[in-house]
Order: sequence, then C-alpha cells, then structure tokens
Amino acid sequence: MDLEKVPLDVPKTERETYLKNYMEITRESGKLMLFAGDQKVEHLNDDFYGEGVHEDDANPEHLFEIASKAKIGVFATQLGLIARYGMDYRNVPYLVKINSKTNLVKTSQADPFSNLWYDVEQIVKFKENSGLKILGVGYTVYIGSEFEAEMFVQAAQVVHNAHQHGMISVLWLYPRGTAVKDEKDPHLIAGATGVGACLGTDFAKVSYPEKEGVNSAEAFKEAVKSAGRTKVVCAGGASDEVDDFLKKLHEQIHISGAMGSATGRNIHQKPIDEAIRMCNAIYAITIDDATVKEALKIYRGK
Amino acid sequence: MDLEKVPLDVPKTERETYLKNYMEITRESGKLMLFAGDQKVEHLNDDFYGEGVHEDDANPEHLFEIASKAKIGVFATQLGLIARYGMDYRNVPYLVKINSKTNLVKTSQADPFSNLWYDVEQIVKFKENSGLKILGVGYTVYIGSEFEAEMFVQAAQVVHNAHQHGMISVLWLYPRGTAVKDEKDPHLIAGATGVGACLGTDFAKVSYPEKEGVNSAEAFKEAVKSAGRTKVVCAGGASDEVDDFLKKLHEQIHISGAMGSATGRNIHQKPIDEAIRMCNAIYAITIDDATVKEALKIYRGK
Amino acid sequence: MDLEKVPLDVPKTERETYLKNYMEITRESGKLMLFAGDQKVEHLNDDFYGEGVHEDDANPEHLFEIASKAKIGVFATQLGLIARYGMDYRNVPYLVKINSKTNLVKTSQADPFSNLWYDVEQIVKFKENSGLKILGVGYTVYIGSEFEAEMFVQAAQVVHNAHQHGMISVLWLYPRGTAVKDEKDPHLIAGATGVGACLGTDFAKVSYPEKEGVNSAEAFKEAVKSAGRTKVVCAGGASDEVDDFLKKLHEQIHISGAMGSATGRNIHQKPIDEAIRMCNAIYAITIDDATVKEALKIYRGK
Amino acid sequence: MDLEKVPLDVPKTERETYLKNYMEITRESGKLMLFAGDQKVEHLNDDFYGEGVHEDDANPEHLFEIASKAKIGVFATQLGLIARYGMDYRNVPYLVKINSKTNLVKTSQADPFSNLWYDVEQIVKFKENSGLKILGVGYTVYIGSEFEAEMFVQAAQVVHNAHQHGMISVLWLYPRGTAVKDEKDPHLIAGATGVGACLGTDFAKVSYPEKEGVNSAEAFKEAVKSAGRTKVVCAGGASDEVDDFLKKLHEQIHISGAMGSATGRNIHQKPIDEAIRMCNAIYAITIDDATVKEALKIYRGK
Amino acid sequence: MDLEKVPLDVPKTERETYLKNYMEITRESGKLMLFAGDQKVEHLNDDFYGEGVHEDDANPEHLFEIASKAKIGVFATQLGLIARYGMDYRNVPYLVKINSKTNLVKTSQADPFSNLWYDVEQIVKFKENSGLKILGVGYTVYIGSEFEAEMFVQAAQVVHNAHQHGMISVLWLYPRGTAVKDEKDPHLIAGATGVGACLGTDFAKVSYPEKEGVNSAEAFKEAVKSAGRTKVVCAGGASDEVDDFLKKLHEQIHISGAMGSATGRNIHQKPIDEAIRMCNAIYAITIDDATVKEALKIYRGK
Repeated sequence: MDLEKVPLDVPKTERETYLKNYMEITRESGKLMLFAGDQKVEHLNDDFYGEGVHEDDANPEHLFEIASKAKIGVFATQLGLIARYGMDYRNVPYLVKINSKTNLVKTSQADPFSNLWYDVEQIVKFKENSGLKILGVGYTVYIGSEFEAEMFVQAAQVVHNAHQHGMISVLWLYPRGTAVKDEKDPHLIAGATGVGACLGTDFAKVSYPEKEGVNSAEAFKEAVKSAGRTKVVCAGGASDEVDDFLKKLHEQIHISGAMGSATGRNIHQKPIDEAIRMCNAIYAITIDDATVKEALKIYRGK
Repeated sequence: MDLEKVPLDVPKTERETYLKNYMEITRESGKLMLFAGDQKVEHLNDDFYGEGVHEDDANPEHLFEIASKAKIGVFATQLGLIARYGMDYRNVPYLVKINSKTNLVKTSQADPFSNLWYDVEQIVKFKENSGLKILGVGYTVYIGSEFEAEMFVQAAQVVHNAHQHGMISVLWLYPRGTAVKDEKDPHLIAGATGVGACLGTDFAKVSYPEKEGVNSAEAFKEAVKSAGRTKVVCAGGASDEVDDFLKKLHEQIHISGAMGSATGRNIHQKPIDEAIRMCNAIYAITIDDATVKEALKIYRGK
Repeated sequence: MDLEKVPLDVPKTERETYLKNYMEITRESGKLMLFAGDQKVEHLNDDFYGEGVHEDDANPEHLFEIASKAKIGVFATQLGLIARYGMDYRNVPYLVKINSKTNLVKTSQADPFSNLWYDVEQIVKFKENSGLKILGVGYTVYIGSEFEAEMFVQAAQVVHNAHQHGMISVLWLYPRGTAVKDEKDPHLIAGATGVGACLGTDFAKVSYPEKEGVNSAEAFKEAVKSAGRTKVVCAGGASDEVDDFLKKLHEQIHISGAMGSATGRNIHQKPIDEAIRMCNAIYAITIDDATVKEALKIYRGK
Repeated sequence: MDLEKVPLDVPKTERETYLKNYMEITRESGKLMLFAGDQKVEHLNDDFYGEGVHEDDANPEHLFEIASKAKIGVFATQLGLIARYGMDYRNVPYLVKINSKTNLVKTSQADPFSNLWYDVEQIVKFKENSGLKILGVGYTVYIGSEFEAEMFVQAAQVVHNAHQHGMISVLWLYPRGTAVKDEKDPHLIAGATGVGACLGTDFAKVSYPEKEGVNSAEAFKEAVKSAGRTKVVCAGGASDEVDDFLKKLHEQIHISGAMGSATGRNIHQKPIDEAIRMCNAIYAITIDDATVKEALKIYRGK
Repeated sequence: MDLEKVPLDVPKTERETYLKNYMEITRESGKLMLFAGDQKVEHLNDDFYGEGVHEDDANPEHLFEIASKAKIGVFATQLGLIARYGMDYRNVPYLVKINSKTNLVKTSQADPFSNLWYDVEQIVKFKENSGLKILGVGYTVYIGSEFEAEMFVQAAQVVHNAHQHGMISVLWLYPRGTAVKDEKDPHLIAGATGVGACLGTDFAKVSYPEKEGVNSAEAFKEAVKSAGRTKVVCAGGASDEVDDFLKKLHEQIHISGAMGSATGRNIHQKPIDEAIRMCNAIYAITIDDATVKEALKIYRGK
C-alpha cells in the first residue's frame, strides 16, 4: 500500500501512522499473518486443555511465548491478557480483540451477540501508556443474527475510530443465527466479505467455504472479489494433519487470492517448539510465498 | 429551489452551502437522479454475482467506475466503500447511505430494523478530511415495523443534523413488517411519503405502487401530493426489459409528478459500457426531460 | 395567568418569556384553541385522502393555509413540515409535536410507543434560527401501555425542558394498551389528566369520556377537577354534523370546565374556505365565549 | 444525628447542608413523618374520587392545603404538582417523588418497572430556582421484579446523588413481581430493608408485615434490625378505623422500632379539617411520642 | 508483585498507588483473604437471620465489627453500608462490591443479570471524600447467562477503570443460566478463570469444583493454570464443620495453587467472638501459611 491508497477516513495527520502500522502488520508484504489467541473467551478452556491439546497450552503465557519467538504478522487477543503479559513480551506486534463472547449460549437458545468491551479511544490510550506495539483492533460480527443491527454499528464505529487514530482494523465476519442455514456457503461468505468492504475494514476474516461438489479454493474467489480493496484473510481449517492444513492455506492464497491467514488452535495446541515451527511455516506461506514443501520443512525443523 | 425556500432547520450560516449542495445534487434541475449502490449489505452478494449478472459487477469498483464515467445526480453507498475508493474517483458526487441491514432475517422471524452506523457529525468530519463531494446522507425507514419508533428518531435526527450542516437528506421509506399486508398499496405509499414530509426530508424514495386494476402512474399521484414540498423519487421497477423500465420511469415523472429516480441493479448488473449507457439514459429522462425514445437511443449507443 | 402563577420549573430569567408565550397561545383568554395537524404520521394518509375528505386536504400545505388564514390559538404539527412551509406562513403560532407514531402496528400486536424525535434544546435552537413563533411543544403519552415507563420519562423531560426555556407544553394523554379495557371510561380519563398534572404540563389533551347511561359533559368534570391547575383540552368528537360537534364543544367548556379545544380532522378535511370558517367557529366558542348559535353563523359565513 | 454520623458519600462541603435537611425533615426528632401524595400516578384517580373519598380530595390542591396547615415532616409528591402549587405553599417541606408508574399493567401481564423521571441534578436546580424547601428525593424499587436490575442502578444513583448535594433520600422498597409469592412476608420485608441499607438510603419505606399466626409488630423487628443505620418507615395499614390505624402506628414505633411513618390515603381522603387533625394525630405519635389516646384526642379536635 | 509486573492498563502515574494497594490488599503476601459481606442483597435476609444464624448477625454492623477486629485482607460490601458505617470503622480495608442482585428471580424464570450500580469514577471520588481505605472494586459476572454480553462490557470497564485509578479488581465469575448445566464442572470453572484473565482482573473468585469421582483439589489446578497471572480465589465451601472447611481451604492453596480465599457466611453467621477467631484462622491459612492444626487452634481461642 502506498500513501495514496490510505483510506479516506484516516485523517491527514494520521496517514503516516496508518501506513507505518499497515506496513508493520503486513511485514511490508501487503499480506496479513494473524496469530489468533482470543479463544479463552470464545471457547472457554476447551481449546487449551484436554485430549489432543499439549499441556503447554494450559497456561495463557504459552500464547505470548509463541508470539514472541515465532515469526508472525500480528498476535490477536484480549486487552486483559496483553495488559498482564505485555511487559515481558514487548517485541510482539499486537491486535486487540475488542469484543468476545463464550460458546455457552447456543443459537438454538438465542442468536449470537458479541459486545464491544472498550471503545477505540481506550485502546489508543492504552497503547500510549503501555508503549506496546498495538497495531490494530479486531471485532467479530455475526451477520444474520437478530443482533446484527447492533453489531453493525459497533463494527462501523470500531473501523472508523481505528482509522481516526491511524490503526488497522480486522473484522471477523461470520454468518450465524437462526436465519442462517449454511454458514459455509460460498455465496454467503462472499456476502460477508462484501459487508466487510462496506464497513470499511482493512482485513476481513472469514471461514473457508465448503459446499458439496464444489472446489473450495475456486469458490472462495467470489468472496475475494466481492471484498474489493478490503483484503480477505482465512484459516486453513480444523484439519489435524499439518500438511493438509498448509496445502489448503497455500491454495487460499495462490488460487483464491486471499491476502493472508488467521490461525489459532492449529498453532497453540502444540508444545512450544512445535508451535513456533508451525507458526513459522504458516508465516512462510503467507508472507514469503513459500511452497507447501518449503513450509513443511520449516515445520519439521528443516 | 431558491434561497427563500431553504428549509428552516438549515442554519442561516449554512443556507448557501445547502443551496449549493441542492443545486449540485439535482444538477440544477430540481430533480434527483440517484444511482443506488448500497446493496452489498442489503442483498449481500445476490445482486452482484450469479445468473443474469455480468461478471464486471463482482468487484465493487464497478460501481465507482459507473458513477465516475456516467451522468448521475449522486451515487449512494456506504462510507466504508467511499473511504477506500474515493481517492480514485474524486469527480463523483456522493451520498452516504448511513444505515443498512442484510436480508437474512426475514419479517416472518423478526420485524426489520436498520440501525444508524454513524452520526451525521462523523460524516461531516469525513467530508472535510477526505475533500470528497459528499452532498448528502441517506437513511432507510421501515414504516410499520415494530422498530418504527427507533427508526423514526434516527431518521428525524439524520435529516435535522444533515440540514444543520447544509447537507441534503434522502429517506428510503418502505412500509414493512408483520403489520404490513401490502407493501405496494398506493394509499400506504402515499402515507409513507407523508411521513417523509413530516420528518422533513428533502427527498423521499419509495416503491412504485402496484394494485390490481389500478394504473400505477395515476395512483402514484396521491403519494406525490401527500409529500408536499418533499420531493418523491422512485425506481423504475425490477423489469429486465430496458424499454419497459424507461417507459415506467418516464411515466413516474411526467404522469405522477415524481421529482427523480433511484436505480441500482438495473444499472450495475450490466457490463461497464452498457451500465454507463443505461445510466445516461436514466439521467436523460430524469434530468434532461428526454423522451423514452431519446433515452433508448442513448442506451443503445446512439 | 399572572406572573405569580408561572410554574416554578420555569427559571426566573424565562418567566417573562413563558408568560408571553402563555398569553399568546391562549390569546389572552387563558384558554387554548389548538388546531391539530399531526395526523400525516399518526394516521398516514387516511385522514387526508379518500371518501369524505375534500381534495384540498391531499396537499399538506392545506394545513398551513388554514392555520394562516383562520383564527387559531396554535397549530400543532411535526418539525419537518414547519421547517419546509414556515417561511411562507410566518404569522402562524406553532406548537411542535415532538413525538409521533403510525397506526400500522395495532395494540393486539404490540403495545403503543411513540418516541421522542428531538430533544427540546433542538426545538429551541430551531425557534431561534427560523425566527418562527414556536410557542410550545407537544407530546403524546399512552398511559397503561407496556412502554408507559419510557414515555413518562420523555414526557416529564419534555415538559420540564420546555419550561426551562419559557415554552408551553401540551400533553396528549391517552390510556391505551393491552391493559386498557375502556379508553373512554370517565374515571380513567380523570386518571389521565391527573397524570398530566403530576407531569407538570400546562395543557392536557384527552378524549371526551363516553359511558353508557352517563352524561359525558357531567362525567368529564371529574377529569377537569383531577387536573387541578393543569388545564384540560378536549376534542368535539368525530361526529360529522357540525352543529352536533359545536354543541359538544360548548358543553365541554361551559358544563365540564374544559379550558380549550383540540381539533384536527373536523377542520382540515373540508375545502379551504369551509375549513377556515369551521376553525373560526371553534375559535369563537373556545376563546370568545360564543354561543353555539353564534358559532354556527360564523361557520355558515354569516 | 450528629455531624460524625453523616454518611460518607456526602461531600465535606455538603455535610452541614445534609445535617440541616436531616434535622428539618425529622423535626429534630430523628424520626420521619412522611405525608405521601404521589398516588395520582400510582393509583390514577382511584384514591381521589369515588365512594368513601371526600369530595375535597378530587382537587390536587387538597394535598397542598393539608401539607401546609397540618403538622408534617415532609410532603412527598411529583415535581409537576410542586412546580404548579409551590408558590402558594412555600412553608411546606417537600420531598420530590422522582419515579412513578400507574397501576394499569398488572404483574400478571408484566413485572413492575417504575422509571426515573428526572436526574437528581435537575431537582437540585429546581430547588435553587424555586426557592422551595426541597429536603430530599424519593424513589420506589420493586425488589424481585424482572426489572430489578435497572431499578437498583437508578436507586443507587438517586441516593448517591442526593447525598452528593446534601439532600435526604427515601426509598420505597416493595417486593413485587412474578417471583414474589408473598409481598407481606416478614422475612422478605426484612430483606427489603437490608437492600435499602446496601443502597445507602436514609429512610426505607416498607409495607407492614402480615403473616398468619404471627404478631406483626414483633415480626417487624427483624426488618428494623436488618436495616441497621438506615431508618425504617412504615404505614399504619389500610384500615378505615382511625383508632386501629393509630394503634398500629404506635406499635410500629414503640414495639418494632420503626423510625417514622408514611401515610397517604388515610389522611387525604378525608375532608380538609378532619385530614389536618388526622395528620396532626399521626405527627404526634411519630414525632412527639404521644400515646394513642392523646393522638385520638387530637384527631377528634380535643 | 514488583513494579515491573504492574498491569499495563495502569497509567504510569498510578503504578505506585496500584502497587501500594496491591501490597495492602494482599498483606504483602501476594495472596488475598477476602471477607465477603455483600449477601444482604444477594441473599436478602436469609444469611443473616433464622435457624443456624447467630442473632449478632441480624444487624449489619456485625460485619463491620468483624472486619475491624479480626485479621482480614479486605472486606467486600456495598457502598451504601460503607458510607454509613465507615466513619466508625476507619481501620478496615474496603473493597466496594459494585454490582448486586437478589435471589428472587430464579434462572428458571429469567437468566441472571447483575447490574453496575456506580461507575468506578464515583467510587474513586467517594474514596477521596471519605478518606477510607478503599483498595479496590468487585463485580460479579454470570458467564453463560443470556445477559453475558452486557456483563462482560461492565466487567471489562470496571477492571480497566479501576486500574486507571490504581485500584485493585476482583471478579466473581460464576457460570449460570439456562445454558449452564453444571455450575461446578471443573473444566467450566477453568473456563471462567480464563475469562477473568482475558478481562484483565487481578483476582478471580470462583466456586470450588465438584465432580463425581474427581478430587476437587486436583481438578481445581486446571482453573489456576488457565487464569495465568490472574490470581484465583476460592471459598472453602458451605460445610458447617469448621475443621472440614479449613482443611478444604488449605488444600485449595497448597494443592490447587489458589492465591487466596473468599469467605462470608462461614464467618459472619457466628457470634462476634467466634466470628473473629474464625476470620483469624482463615487469615492464618491464607496469608501466614499456617497448617490446618494451627488454624484450628486459633479458631478455638488457643
């Protein structure tokens, strides 16, 4: 991105800051490698403890160790954790996940609503006071929820106010609620990225489409196109097999045109060394245009 | 409009600005040709991708290209898109569509509510910072919805605050909700334009009435009259046939007394060249008093 | 009213203004003749177009012509209309009806809620900027609605803030909602006027009581008494016959002790000349202590 | 009360004012005789007109005459009435009842919610502007209502902000709602006074307990104890017989330990002279430690 | 805790204050002994009066006497009580419990919501005005309630704003609501402490896990680990037997790794002397690393 393409809701005085944040969050590649660590609210302790999860992950500091020692674009988590660990992990680039909900109330009971915990001004003040590298803010929208109206306003305000302060915005855009029959439908996901564009976000994180008889990587192109200048970021999926995961990630970027990746559990549920190597492998594909083979070598420790 | 008729909720210091905006948005004709491009939220990707839609429309930049190269009164879309494309389309006159909802939750599940994404002061600040030609703001009201009370307040405030800053207001006024049996009833649509007048809007965009055994163009007169000095704007309908569409449009203006048109899909679902010619044809009827025949010539490239 | 009786929520600096507004709105008679023109929202176009309604009424300007040419105490309508017609009808004394709802959602679907469109400070600013004779504000409360709690707060604030700026307040007080079995019950209407007194309003507009076997004019005395120093204003009823209407009006004032009248449809559904004469007849009874006979002469053009 | 016991949420600058108000509202006795006149909203016109109610009570001025001519601690009513009658009754000590609801919606339809009509700052400003003796504010909480959460916040704010300005607070604490099976249960009423203490109120007005096989005066001790330093105020009950009423009142104070009384209908439904004598009798028991016999003599006019 | 580990949402100017409060609230041990006295709202008078409760507990002053004469870390109760007793108990370290609800509405009727009574700024102002040792604020969150979204925002703001003023935060984190099948499930409680960490709280108070066939002390380790640098505080349970109670408490700290205790009823339902000794026994285990045997000696008066 060059200065001319800085979104116009960034004030002139903040354009340099925005550009600097944008360059840093994309590691000057224009692509985003996001390490997602907000699941302690979203999934409670399910992702951090139990069968299939390494015991390193039981302690939240594990996330910070990975973020600090591995190559990443940005580490996304809640302000509370950042405030308590940040002093020991000052080299980490942070994105404050500014809303969160648990998974206890299911859609069958009530449509999802994830509420704004702080306003952006508080994040800006926190950034200044802490001296941490807070590059941006993240917010989840459940499109099609009966609370969509309230979340749209919060999302619009988060993006707008982040830009007002030269910060980068990432929206997690998930169709969900009584009205949503198929959350992975490619056309619906393209709708979601389009909504992200209308909300003015820099990055739109969506689920990877799945549809019987359809090639996901091809189908995902619709979403990338629909987003326009908003960049689409995706996860490699929940597959346990690392090579499958990295292959999907590579296709998202090189076939579908995604401009980044967002990965959580597939990184942090592993022991610290393996988690770091996994992170580096994902980084290599996302930012350094590595092949799947090269990435697998990184994951396996060369 | 002359200075004497500027609405009295425009402060004296902003009357010249209002008049200038009014003249520009109506191209000094007193009539409004609105190119509507807010459907990426309202209809998700349904209007932009799939059968019957040209592939040019998959990318939101298509909208800006049309708005930039065709003759229009104003291009209405969400702030997020304007902020990201505006620097490359500075000649376009913009209207910020300030609320939006998706079509996922149907009235059978819950009555419609479209929430205010920004307050007008944020739009004014954006206008100043961006240097774009932001001429006004638009807001949709669902009359008869169980959330009518909340939308009336937001609409009243949007119109009032737009006027406070010399900007033009357009209200989309749609009867919709459990209580509304026939959204196209001519008498009900006349009710809607009357509500628009009471809310003080400059332009009221409504659906074209449809009633068995009734001539729509004649029946629509009631709505034009009911609006008083608020000007009524209508769409040509969803008909695929261009000549039918333009004919209806001509009747709305010359029979019913509508003071403008608002068109979206009938323009942007076409390839770029055809979309521009379609836009120009609509402009010719709306602003230049062209006949249907003349407009069709424009559409067909002379 | 003399200076000593100015309500104590009027600041000392505004007492002269309040008294001046009070004198003007009551034409120095202490009684209020209110011409109600807020139905374009309340009843949509039902009151303005169709069988039994003269075609003059289809255009909202009709209301302003009547208000300008007839004798009235004050003309009550929405800010939007006043803002767009006021420059041509500067002689009219206005009361801004500050909340409104449509009649689409029935009580069987949801209890009524009419939301505050503006705060009083915006009306005060509008008054100053426009130079119009804005004498007061009006607000409707649905007593017994499930939304009563919210409307009581808005009403209390509207009255209090109007007084803070030396303006007059009128509350429309209608028992309505699932819990209300008989909206016209004399005892319930006396409850409503008492609520108006507790809310501190200057004038309380209620429906005329109706009860089998009871004389309405006599029964209405309870409501007038219950209101104490708050003055009760009533409508002549929906009867089409002018002489019946005026007779009822005369009884309300001279038997029941009402201190004014509020009339809408019985005036504006008539052609302009007749509407003006009807208005003058009502004024004569309300303000000038005319007999029914004298008023009928006025209505019939002497 | 001495200066050392002034609650600590009263700022140092307001402690003298608080103490002065406290001394005045308790007539230097430490006990509160509250004359309740807020029923025109709470019970509409039921308490003021009809069988068993003297015709003097039909006019709200009756309340002010009693408050002015009888011995009372404080007269509690809505701001609107005070604003309109206060200029003629400047000797009366007032307590502004700051929330109110009608009795139309029953608990079987919806749980009770009584909403805050003004914030305390408006009352303070009113006090200063009017020059009236506004000694405090009153607020009703329905404990156990589904709207308890909202009322607790309003009550906490009312008490806190009253204290911020050196004013006295009275909370009406009524267990009510779908969840409340027995509103008069002694243990539940003791819960209510405890809640009042936690909310920091100066006086807690509750209903007198009633339980089969239990002596009310004895059972009421639990509530007085539970309130701690918050003082408990009670009504003599709805009994029509004056001697019964006064006897109960005497027991509440001398057996249960209540620190005052709150009486409405038992005073104002009588003709003016009798109402004044009744008021004086209640005052004698509450403030002057009179016996029931002495009080009855006062009531009977010596 | 040393200065380097002060959370980064504490401004630089408040870090010394925070550290001082932290040292005081943990008695320089890093562990928290919290004496909970907020049940007069939470459980109404059930915990203070009746069978099994000593009569000393009927008066709220009992709580202050214990807090003043026994060894404690901090005494948590509502602002109202502190404001009325604090002047006589100035040596007590206080924590303001800033939200509360009663137990009348059960989850079967509606999901729990405990609303914020004051904002933190009011507490800070109260602290300054009163001169009391207000060390922190406490807030209860019902995770899994349908009102979780609203409580998460309030909790995040309470923690953040407490830190902004150098104050300590304690969150009570209880999974509760229609969606919560087993409130004592160890994994769910670990989820709750993780949420506390994400909300940035200093201390997270949770219930002690219970699961058939599982050792609670062992199972509780998951929750301690999940909380990371947020410290976990627990209650000894509702067991009446003091030795059982103290044994559990000892295990929570020495087996599970809890960093403190929170006890209410097990202290205050006893007569004053016994309550003080019980308090001292709990303090000895929590802060002074006493054995159960040593603590029992303290409880039994040596």
